[in-house]
Amino acid sequence: EETVCVFGTGDLGRSLGFKMHQCGYSVVFGSRSPQMSSLLPSGAEVLSYSEAAQKSDIIIVAIHREHYYFLTELTKVLKGKILVDVSNNLKINQYPESNAEYLAQLLPGTHVVKAFNTISAWALQSGALDASRQVFVCGNDSKAKQRVMNIVRTLGLTPLDQGSLTAAKEIENYPLQLFPMWRFPLYLSAALCIFVFFYCVIRDVIYPYVYGKKNETFRLAISIPNRVFPSVALILLALVYLPGVLAAILQLYRGTKYRRFPAWLDHWMLCRKQLGLVALGFAFLHVLYTLVIPIRYFVRWRLKNMTLTQAMTNKDSPFSTSTAWRSDSYVALGILGFFLFVLLGITSLPSVSNTVNWREFRFVQSKLGYLTLILCTAHALVYGGQRFLSPSSYKWYLPPAHVLALIIPCTLLVIKFILIIPCIDKALTRIRQGWE
Amino acid sequence: EETVCVFGTGDLGRSLGFKMHQCGYSVVFGSRSPQMSSLLPSGAEVLSYSEAAQKSDIIIVAIHREHYYFLTELTKVLKGKILVDVSNNLKINQYPESNAEYLAQLLPGTHVVKAFNTISAWALQSGALDASRQVFVCGNDSKAKQRVMNIVRTLGLTPLDQGSLTAAKEIENYPLQLFPMWRFPLYLSAALCIFVFFYCVIRDVIYPYVYGKKNETFRLAISIPNRVFPSVALILLALVYLPGVLAAILQLYRGTKYRRFPAWLDHWMLCRKQLGLVALGFAFLHVLYTLVIPIRYFVRWRLKNMTLTQAMTNKDSPFSTSTAWRSDSYVALGILGFFLFVLLGITSLPSVSNTVNWREFRFVQSKLGYLTLILCTAHALVYGGQRFLSPSSYKWYLPPAHVLALIIPCTLLVIKFILIIPCIDKALTRIRQGWE
Amino acid sequence: EETVCVFGTGDLGRSLGFKMHQCGYSVVFGSRSPQMSSLLPSGAEVLSYSEAAQKSDIIIVAIHREHYYFLTELTKVLKGKILVDVSNNLKINQYPESNAEYLAQLLPGTHVVKAFNTISAWALQSGALDASRQVFVCGNDSKAKQRVMNIVRTLGLTPLDQGSLTAAKEIENYPLQLFPMWRFPLYLSAALCIFVFFYCVIRDVIYPYVYGKKNETFRLAISIPNRVFPSVALILLALVYLPGVLAAILQLYRGTKYRRFPAWLDHWMLCRKQLGLVALGFAFLHVLYTLVIPIRYFVRWRLKNMTLTQAMTNKDSPFSTSTAWRSDSYVALGILGFFLFVLLGITSLPSVSNTVNWREFRFVQSKLGYLTLILCTAHALVYGGQRFLSPSSYKWYLPPAHVLALIIPCTLLVIKFILIIPCIDKALTRIRQGWE
Ligand SMILES: Cc1cc2nc3c(=O)[nH]c(=O)nc-3n(C[C@H](O)[C@H](O)[C@H](O)COP(=O)(O)OP(=O)(O)OC[C@H]3O[C@@H](n4cnc5c(N)ncnc54)[C@H](O)[C@@H]3O)c2cc1C
Ligand SMILES: Cc1cc2nc3c(=O)[nH]c(=O)nc-3n(C[C@H](O)[C@H](O)[C@H](O)COP(=O)(O)OP(=O)(O)OC[C@H]3O[C@@H](n4cnc5c(N)ncnc54)[C@H](O)[C@@H]3O)c2cc1C
Ligand SMILES: Cc1cc2nc3c(=O)[nH]c(=O)nc-3n(C[C@H](O)[C@H](O)[C@H](O)COP(=O)(O)OP(=O)(O)OC[C@H]3O[C@@H](n4cnc5c(N)ncnc54)[C@H](O)[C@@H]3O)c2cc1C
Ligand SMILES: NC(=O)c1ccc[n+]([C@@H]2O[C@H](COP(=O)([O-])OP(=O)(O)OC[C@H]3O[C@@H](n4cnc5c(N)ncnc54)[C@H](OP(=O)(O)O)[C@@H]3O)[C@@H](O)[C@H]2O)c1
Ligand SMILES: NC(=O)c1ccc[n+]([C@@H]2O[C@H](COP(=O)([O-])OP(=O)(O)OC[C@H]3O[C@@H](n4cnc5c(N)ncnc54)[C@H](OP(=O)(O)O)[C@@H]3O)[C@@H](O)[C@H]2O)c1
Ligand SMILES: NC(=O)c1ccc[n+]([C@@H]2O[C@H](COP(=O)([O-])OP(=O)(O)OC[C@H]3O[C@@H](n4cnc5c(N)ncnc54)[C@H](OP(=O)(O)O)[C@@H]3O)[C@@H](O)[C@H]2O)c1
Ligand SMILES: CCCCCCCCCCCCCCCC(=O)OC[C@H](COP(=O)(O)O)OC(=O)CCCCCCCCCCCCCCC
Ligand SMILES: CCCCCCCCCCCCCCCC(=O)OC[C@H](COP(=O)(O)O)OC(=O)CCCCCCCCCCCCCCC
Ligand SMILES: CCCCCCCCCCCCCCCC(=O)OC[C@H](COP(=O)(O)O)OC(=O)CCCCCCCCCCCCCCC
Ligand code: HEM
Ligand code: HEM
Ligand code: HEM
Repeated sequence: EETVCVFGTGDLGRSLGFKMHQCGYSVVFGSRSPQMSSLLPSGAEVLSYSEAAQKSDIIIVAIHREHYYFLTELTKVLKGKILVDVSNNLKINQYPESNAEYLAQLLPGTHVVKAFNTISAWALQSGALDASRQVFVCGNDSKAKQRVMNIVRTLGLTPLDQGSLTAAKEIENYPLQLFPMWRFPLYLSAALCIFVFFYCVIRDVIYPYVYGKKNETFRLAISIPNRVFPSVALILLALVYLPGVLAAILQLYRGTKYRRFPAWLDHWMLCRKQLGLVALGFAFLHVLYTLVIPIRYFVRWRLKNMTLTQAMTNKDSPFSTSTAWRSDSYVALGILGFFLFVLLGITSLPSVSNTVNWREFRFVQSKLGYLTLILCTAHALVYGGQRFLSPSSYKWYLPPAHVLALIIPCTLLVIKFILIIPCIDKALTRIRQGWE
Repeated sequence: EETVCVFGTGDLGRSLGFKMHQCGYSVVFGSRSPQMSSLLPSGAEVLSYSEAAQKSDIIIVAIHREHYYFLTELTKVLKGKILVDVSNNLKINQYPESNAEYLAQLLPGTHVVKAFNTISAWALQSGALDASRQVFVCGNDSKAKQRVMNIVRTLGLTPLDQGSLTAAKEIENYPLQLFPMWRFPLYLSAALCIFVFFYCVIRDVIYPYVYGKKNETFRLAISIPNRVFPSVALILLALVYLPGVLAAILQLYRGTKYRRFPAWLDHWMLCRKQLGLVALGFAFLHVLYTLVIPIRYFVRWRLKNMTLTQAMTNKDSPFSTSTAWRSDSYVALGILGFFLFVLLGITSLPSVSNTVNWREFRFVQSKLGYLTLILCTAHALVYGGQRFLSPSSYKWYLPPAHVLALIIPCTLLVIKFILIIPCIDKALTRIRQGWE
Repeated sequence: EETVCVFGTGDLGRSLGFKMHQCGYSVVFGSRSPQMSSLLPSGAEVLSYSEAAQKSDIIIVAIHREHYYFLTELTKVLKGKILVDVSNNLKINQYPESNAEYLAQLLPGTHVVKAFNTISAWALQSGALDASRQVFVCGNDSKAKQRVMNIVRTLGLTPLDQGSLTAAKEIENYPLQLFPMWRFPLYLSAALCIFVFFYCVIRDVIYPYVYGKKNETFRLAISIPNRVFPSVALILLALVYLPGVLAAILQLYRGTKYRRFPAWLDHWMLCRKQLGLVALGFAFLHVLYTLVIPIRYFVRWRLKNMTLTQAMTNKDSPFSTSTAWRSDSYVALGILGFFLFVLLGITSLPSVSNTVNWREFRFVQSKLGYLTLILCTAHALVYGGQRFLSPSSYKWYLPPAHVLALIIPCTLLVIKFILIIPCIDKALTRIRQGWE
């Protein structure tokens, strides 16, 4: 039975002590006021800091950085011991050096190891370890690191060695991040949404008001979002596959892969997954908005009204097979596109993508991905139909939203078809295989 | 090449032997009737129990507890060896002591290690290891435990050290559990469903029958479930966020976090995830039931009939922009609420929640969770509209189901808004940070 | 700080060097043209192959197999060193022996370890390790293997020991596989789809054309797929549960479980998961196709037309409670069936199935699975209703598609009900427990 010392009887100190106690360690707490401490695991000793330090050569410092200074009084007792720094800050890059390095400077004779800072005290104690089970570990002494990693493993967590103590800065910033990779896709899609939204408001609300004094504001709730969301989804989907094509053109132009891409292209390529998932989200919204169409009061009212008008005027509306074909086929294309879209989403779940090999992953993401794009583009094209040409759909010379949405996907597909012409494809393959 | 001995040529014995043979171990079986054994891995030796025991110092006892007694005859041969107990029982707490402890008592000179009991023989052999790949290991001798854990790791499974042999009881109970954390949420939602169901039957089936002799029983199939499911979903969603608010009030009242919550609150907080997922299930059902509305014979018949009546009576039904607004906006709120609901569901998939840090997880679960609740509540409020006030919707003084469903969410949201008033929020933060 | 040598400055060499450098190793590259190499991690040395080899006793050979011959010149320098073979081929079983074994033959005095071949260079460098993080490792020298596995672990990947170097063949084939387990289910469902599709074309398009000269081709887009997909989904779902029943009958007939099943049954049992997921895919398509029904031009036109005809002819169409019941109840059964279907799908996500124990997994997959089958079968039965009997639905003596689709599920359910009769069930349990 190994003894571990924990400094500080705060939230994290107690949780760690509790958990280690459960996993068979004997735990000694150090505290400013040993007799007042409460809620500690039964069987754990609580001593003053200096007494506790003597009981073990591995000490978990569950104290905020602001209070580290008092540890300097214990320099002698701590000499040669392993100090585990678990602290986090409130802001990214709050201090010039990382907390772990600061601790190491304060107490030069010790082996400081950074660990446990990504774990939540509450989750650890309650067992509901929903967010990351990964514990990043770094430190300059590899034996000390190994011992801490053993403790991590015994608690049922996954240690990840991050190298020397200089990595502490990054480790301390990690828990303060808020979806860094999602930021660009989300901003981009917000900008696109706002643009298409106002574009549609002008065409569908302001135009009829100006020319017909009709109050069409109720379209703001469903009709217009159901133009905005699919358009943005389609544009984003095309933007997922655009960087791959740009990279190919660049490599063809340069004739070599041995040069770095410009930074923006690199970043764009790395956030394609997030772009794709945001596109999926918008497509999902489009599908829901579409499926509720027949429930809407406006739609039911219009159907009733059209029937009544026709009954009054006694005009016949014969069945048009070509309209039926067009209506059915654009919907069918949309469904198939959405189905593949969802499949792409499922394979990007970490647990699923982890069970497939690269060839399979590339097959789904690249081959089926392009198929998705083709189906969705065809869906919008068939939906648009002849409307592209009829002048009546150009209000104030503004084309319908889906015409705008189709520009990037269609251009992309044309370029891609050029790139897979055998002779160009062969040149590209040669470049990518790197055999001069 | 290490040699491992397996006692018993039953299902688990064979599967383990087969798998270990595949992973490079040499395997010796012990059996009552060595010559009759069949389906064993080619290359494995089958001997009598005592002969087999001599071949290796690590022995996997793949025999039911009921037959352990005969091992006492081998006490001498087994002295000092590692015995791996793999057995399960048929009922929780079937015997006073765990099987592993019983084995250790029977054979005092041996090192008993508990392992492999969570694995299915069929899955191991066929490679379809769908359910848990985790192997809980416990034992008093840490060297013995380490060796068994190495075997586990080599077979591609994940060993989890659970400490000393006293943990065996819990390990043996684990495979007999059936969704313990889901029990309370499921019972609760079943009770709510039954209550709301009969409530709606009284209002929607019995009342029209009593007053109008109308046969509305067909409503039992879709209309009434589509009142029950969304109401229960909304109540459950509110119950997910209620304990957090209660805990905050309690902490404010006590002025400290250094006291345990009452047990019921603790348990409630731990099953919020399950409550939320059950709510998602009901919401999903509500969405499906809603989307099929226009397909229903009853709805199509009613629409046709209304059109006909209007054609006959020649009455005009002018388009009401405000009705269109209300109808569209409650549906749009529902869609957005459902979208976020699904997002919450996706982030609670273990593999997704494992790739986000705590800040991100809390952001989605807490911030977006409250947004979901607000959207869903607004959806039901707007749907209810003025109906709250009109006496015609109070049949036998019973308010519509959605009025009942709105009580808890609205109350909760009001309290939450009070709690985030800056001065109260600051007090709470101070308490939770624990700085006296 | 350990020094690792990398042979070859190609894609994988650079990526591995880069990553190892990041994780604290010091890296030395060997290259044909050290001075021309570019894009290498700063701080890494680039030397000629023979010089580089002397710097470290662990060498990663990031060169294509076709160029291994030149290594024979270095036999002396490489003596006793660990060579890590990372190579892949372009085709399965391209060469008689595996690349790793070939390398070992070329350089007899070295310890060859196979590793890293499943990792993509681009993913490793960019950190977007979406597909498999697993690194299969094999080799004859267990110390060498252990050292390579430590490197793998340090890079944040998961090493999996596969035994001796003879396993290299399989490891090299792994990255070339393309969904081997999905092949049979996909072929089977494609065949079923084609068959049911042409069957429906004959009944729904050719028959009306021959007898009424009606152009019903527009049905090819939605109406017919919406017969094909649900029928195939139902058949596949039944085929998931059929092998379990066949196995039970076989075991009852043989009176023992100690005999292998025929190979086809074994394979069938192992691809039930994939069969089930494909069935879920088709069911999902059916649901989408069904929900868009009211949006279709054809359906809206028909509703309008029927209303108009009725208005003209002044015929009354009274409300039929029994039709309402039937219509609502088959839809409700479908929804509940689909809900459970999705639940089955969610529990087969690797990360979810990994957190449940076997009892829970069996409960969901077997108990709820049969419930799903029952609900879906009932859905189709109630939908079919009396149509089974009316001769008008037999066109050219061909029964409707759903009658065909119902044959296997109904038969299966009948046999299953027989098998769970207590006396038969007891006999089966006795056989499966294996107590003679
Ligand atoms: C719903 C949805 C989910 C998605 N999920 C994911 C996801 O989980 N993960 C993900 O990565 N993407 C994801 N994407 C984005 C997209 O599908 C993939 O990035 C896809 O692989 C791009 O295909 P491509 O043919 O354009 O690739 P290309 O750009 O042609 O090639 C990309 C691939 O080629 C290789 N490569 C790239 N550049 C080079 C180079 N210079 N030298 C050598 N090889 C190179 C790499 O293996 C890379 O993965 C998702 C998209 C959608 C719509
Ligand atoms: C579809 C769906 C899925 C869900 N999935 C999950 C899931 O996967 N995992 C999950 O946990 N919940 C899940 N939930 C439930 C719910 O979203 C979360 O529990 C949510 O975090 C509650 O938010 P809150 O603001 O009420 O939390 P609060 O109760 O205000 O705070 C809870 C959080 O604060 C911390 N905390 C709690 N008590 C204390 C204390 N005494 N001292 C210090 N810190 C404390 C903890 O970090 C805790 O997680 C799900 C809900 C839904 C609807
Ligand atoms: C949407 C969907 C998803 C699915 N996902 C999965 C999945 O992730 N994983 C999966 O495996 N299946 C999956 N399936 C297939 C199916 O649900 C399961 O295979 C299910 O367990 C079969 O149930 P059963 O009652 O027919 O099993 P049975 O055939 O009666 O028994 C099967 C089980 O019994 C045991 N067993 C089988 N043969 C023997 C034997 N000879 N001796 C002793 N025990 C034996 C094994 O534990 C086996 O799992 C899925 C199906 C669907 C529709
Ligand atoms: N809570 C989490 O979820 C979490 C997660 C990851 C990392 N962390 C890190 O863990 C460390 C501790 O966090 P915590 O949440 O446990 O904090 P806390 O509850 O505030 O506890 C801090 C403890 O530090 C001790 N301490 C020593 N000198 C002190 C002083 N001068 N003033 C105040 N306290 C002093 C106190 O213990 P005694 O009274 O016994 O002396 C106190 O209980 C922090 O560095 C934090 O960043 C916390
Ligand atoms: N099957 C599973 O999926 C599974 C999963 C987890 C744990 N387990 C546990 O593993 C153990 C074995 O399970 P199993 O499924 O392999 O059982 P089994 O098929 O019934 O085999 C039991 C074996 O025990 C041996 N045995 C020794 N003395 C015996 C006696 N007096 N009577 C009967 N058999 C005797 C027999 O082997 P010989 O004929 O060769 O002597 C027999 O084959 C049990 O403790 C079980 O709880 C099983
Ligand atoms: N790329 C991947 O994603 C990946 C993934 C898994 C496995 N692999 C395997 O890793 C190995 C290397 O792949 P790679 O993609 O890095 O290939 P690559 O880019 O073509 O690099 C091959 C390197 O081999 C060296 N080399 C030595 N003798 C050579 C010769 N006679 N002709 C050409 N090159 C020679 C060259 O380095 P110098 O110019 O410095 O001598 C060249 O850069 C292959 O066996 C491959 O199967 C690659
Ligand atoms: C129905 C469509 C589905 C629905 C909605 C769209 C959701 C799209 C947005 C996903 C957002 C995920 C947030 C992840 C948080 C995060 O940062 O997650 C971080 C990780 C990033 O991991 P890495 O850092 O390892 O790359 O992202 C993920 O894990 C992505 C999860 C993808 C989930 C896609 C799920 C699709 C499931 C579809 C199911 C079925 C649909 C049925 C249809 C009717
Ligand atoms: C469409 C909505 C989705 C659908 C249906 C609702 C499902 C809700 C019920 C989930 C039940 C999961 C059973 C888990 C078994 C278990 O015990 O699982 C046990 C684990 C518990 O793990 P821990 O013990 O680690 O907490 O639970 C889970 O892993 C939860 C999985 C959550 C899955 C939510 C999935 C939502 C996906 C939504 C996708 C897209 C939707 C598209 C919409 C049209
Ligand atoms: C909406 C229904 C969902 C949708 C669509 C159907 C998808 C069915 C096809 C799944 C294909 C997965 C490809 C996997 C690639 C692979 O080889 O994956 C390989 C692994 C095989 O793993 P093993 O080798 O470990 O067995 O398969 C999987 O991981 C299976 C993943 C199953 C995913 C099912 C997800 C269902 C989610 C439902 C969500 C909610 C729905 C909401 C409804 C409106
Ligand atoms: C189930 C799947 C789908 C169905 C049933 C469907 C149906 C529809 C319908 C009915 C419309 C016309 C909307 C209107 O009249 O205002 C439409 C438009 C459109 N859809 Fe889809 N769709 C589906 C999936 C998709 C997907 C996956 C995409 C691509 C990302 C997409 C992109 C579009 C676009 C761009 C438009 C034109 C929007 C506009 O400007 O009006 N659809 N879809
Ligand atoms: C796609 C998303 C959604 C749509 C299209 C939708 C649509 C509807 C519709 C049309 C009704 C009226 C039903 C009727 O007339 O009987 C309704 C009622 C209701 N919905 Fe939703 N909804 C959605 C999501 C949600 C969600 C996520 C919740 C909350 C959990 C919810 C809660 C309710 C409640 C409580 C009612 C009142 C039920 C009653 O008593 O009649 N809805 N919804
Ligand atoms: C949300 C769930 C579901 C709904 C709303 C639904 C609805 C329907 C509807 C409206 C039809 C009649 C289609 C037509 O008139 O052409 C139908 C037919 C059918 N459904 Fe479903 N269904 C659902 C789920 C399922 C599931 C999960 C299965 C089984 C795998 C299934 C199997 C069938 C079959 C076999 C037919 C007969 C197809 C034919 O030959 O016409 N359904 N369903």
